[in-house]
Amino acid sequence: MIYLDNNATTALDPLVRDEMLPWLGDENYGNPSAGYRFGKRAREAVETARAKVAELIGAEPEEITFTSGGTESNNTALEAARRIRPDRNEFMISAVEHSAIFEPCQFYESTGLVCRMNPVDSYGHLDLDFWEAALSDKTALASLIFANNETGVISPVTEAAEAAANAGAMFHTDAVQAVGKIPVSVNDAPIQMLSMSAHKLHGPKGVGALFVSRNSRFHPLLIGGGQEDGRRSGTENVAAIVGFGKAAELARADFHADSIGKLRDRFENGVLEKIEGVEVNGDRENRLPNTSNLYFTGVDGEGLLILLDEAGICCSPGSACSTGSVEPSRIIKAMGFSTERARSSVRFSLSKFTTESEIDEAVAQLEKAVSKLRVVMPKSGSRVVVNS
Amino acid sequence: MIYLDNNATTALDPLVRDEMLPWLGDENYGNPSAGYRFGKRAREAVETARAKVAELIGAEPEEITFTSGGTESNNTALEAARRIRPDRNEFMISAVEHSAIFEPCQFYESTGLVCRMNPVDSYGHLDLDFWEAALSDKTALASLIFANNETGVISPVTEAAEAAANAGAMFHTDAVQAVGKIPVSVNDAPIQMLSMSAHKLHGPKGVGALFVSRNSRFHPLLIGGGQEDGRRSGTENVAAIVGFGKAAELARADFHADSIGKLRDRFENGVLEKIEGVEVNGDRENRLPNTSNLYFTGVDGEGLLILLDEAGICCSPGSACSTGSVEPSRIIKAMGFSTERARSSVRFSLSKFTTESEIDEAVAQLEKAVSKLRVVMPKSGSRVVVNS
Repeated sequence: MIYLDNNATTALDPLVRDEMLPWLGDENYGNPSAGYRFGKRAREAVETARAKVAELIGAEPEEITFTSGGTESNNTALEAARRIRPDRNEFMISAVEHSAIFEPCQFYESTGLVCRMNPVDSYGHLDLDFWEAALSDKTALASLIFANNETGVISPVTEAAEAAANAGAMFHTDAVQAVGKIPVSVNDAPIQMLSMSAHKLHGPKGVGALFVSRNSRFHPLLIGGGQEDGRRSGTENVAAIVGFGKAAELARADFHADSIGKLRDRFENGVLEKIEGVEVNGDRENRLPNTSNLYFTGVDGEGLLILLDEAGICCSPGSACSTGSVEPSRIIKAMGFSTERARSSVRFSLSKFTTESEIDEAVAQLEKAVSKLRVVMPKSGSRVVVNS
Repeated sequence: MIYLDNNATTALDPLVRDEMLPWLGDENYGNPSAGYRFGKRAREAVETARAKVAELIGAEPEEITFTSGGTESNNTALEAARRIRPDRNEFMISAVEHSAIFEPCQFYESTGLVCRMNPVDSYGHLDLDFWEAALSDKTALASLIFANNETGVISPVTEAAEAAANAGAMFHTDAVQAVGKIPVSVNDAPIQMLSMSAHKLHGPKGVGALFVSRNSRFHPLLIGGGQEDGRRSGTENVAAIVGFGKAAELARADFHADSIGKLRDRFENGVLEKIEGVEVNGDRENRLPNTSNLYFTGVDGEGLLILLDEAGICCSPGSACSTGSVEPSRIIKAMGFSTERARSSVRFSLSKFTTESEIDEAVAQLEKAVSKLRVVMPKSGSRVVVNS
């Protein structure tokens, strides 16, 4: 199998797994909130992991709250802003946010909150002039995705955060796809909150974190026993938190950005050379080193994914959130492209575990699959119906 | 070490761990929402676990939504009721709810919702007459803990749920401590929602579930990619979900209620025989078989816990939620007892892994520790200051 869907989820690094296993045995199962020494051992492991996650983004440990993942972190950021800024009734986001920001904002609109959505251009770039103009003394929170999950395009977070600060608004960035792949520092901009997820950087599923600046007020989403300093109640997922810490430590030591970027370019250039009618979605320069989102003109994306799966290649139509979803990518459409282009685009995302031979095999299989689909296609531009 | 804090968290069953490990390797890390076969394998594992969890409580698989744990399940139930019954502005709970119900209700009160808290008697029994009288056409949700986490006392869930149904209110039960210890069936009462947590029944931390009756409407707390049929967004924590499924299967095969109950009685009777001035908190009959909450008159609970920890015995003052919390138990006080009694009470909770020799050793150590504390105590009834 050739796994090119690392923006959906990544393989657990064996070094992360090794760090987690002692916390999944019958030796270390204490509740970190318990008063006895057996519990305090778990508490120490959680705090060590917190320091490592903090270090990865230039934060202080007390600014890190562990959550169950990126979706909870994003949802919490929105709810916190809504609670601590009741005087302001608007959220501002970009048109290329992940569903874990986009969908709750749709919901908040139904409760009377106004959600302003800012456009991007055909490269996936945020229109900063529009962004600044839309900010006002009504904006409670401005939230911008750090790097897009489908195209990998990196947002102008510093400028957007400064503009939000000038308007007196809070600023949050969904950095789920960026953290662990490229340098992310909370000190580069007036960022109040930042979302992370462990399983995007070879950590375990089921754990994420929300950075909350020590200068910011906060309101929790999950309320109960008061864990995580009252910021996120619920018994700490110790093994997963320990794994997140190790994954953060490994990422900080080496993003593998150069080697991954070279392989991604080898893949993309290989495809563009060998297959006609392919275009790259999103800015090729200002992009995560691991992501390639390609438009195969006149090819049904779903049919392509099926053929690639048969050839043992895992990749996806964009986000991998909802099973069996046949909706064309909201992100590609937000960049001003047609539904047809959205339907004919496929995301390939690499990791440090991707090899050169896998890339070369993937290019060869893609070439075969695209030829096959184009042969069965009645005429250019229309959709191939698989199984017809 | 003698672990008698199983209501705080339990040891991961080695059989559960074995089932989880393949999903923590580099062989099975696919995203269950992905369209390719590698993802579908993870999807199948999640669905198998769902069927097992459903079976444990007599539900259908589609009535089970996986969450990050008991707190999220409880918080979700409250938010769901608030969203789908905007015509009703009251929540009704008991005075002995877990913090993951009690605290969010406190918060909802600050947003204008009315939260009615129903008293219990000195045995921890809900006053059903009061409960019925307090229900009205304003009650959106009535929520009652199935078995109390501190005393183990079992609530009259069937009667309380029927009364709620008669008032047209939704009914939720926090069954986090009950599921896996005693038979719990959603078919015994008109229950719309029920919360569970895996790490209370020898499953992993970081995963729980919310039962939502197929006849009930619902609104999610975590919103995003639409996983869990739109009921709980966020990439599925596959390994933990698989572990929860196995833990549910094992619990269904055998609660070990008889053997645990015998050991608990051996412990309790041993303590009552050998140590003077000990009283049991809560109804001794209608109680979880694993829980013993004891009042040691004239003994500072915290001092006792410290001495027991030194002797290698893990137990807790009540709930283990907030580290270093020195608040006397809200539950003991809700039963009409003094702060002094709350401060002098300790919870012991057993599991299927507890042995007879551990119980006998615990009784002996308790006897020593209580004598020691009573000797250093200035006079009966006042608090011992440790380190003075």
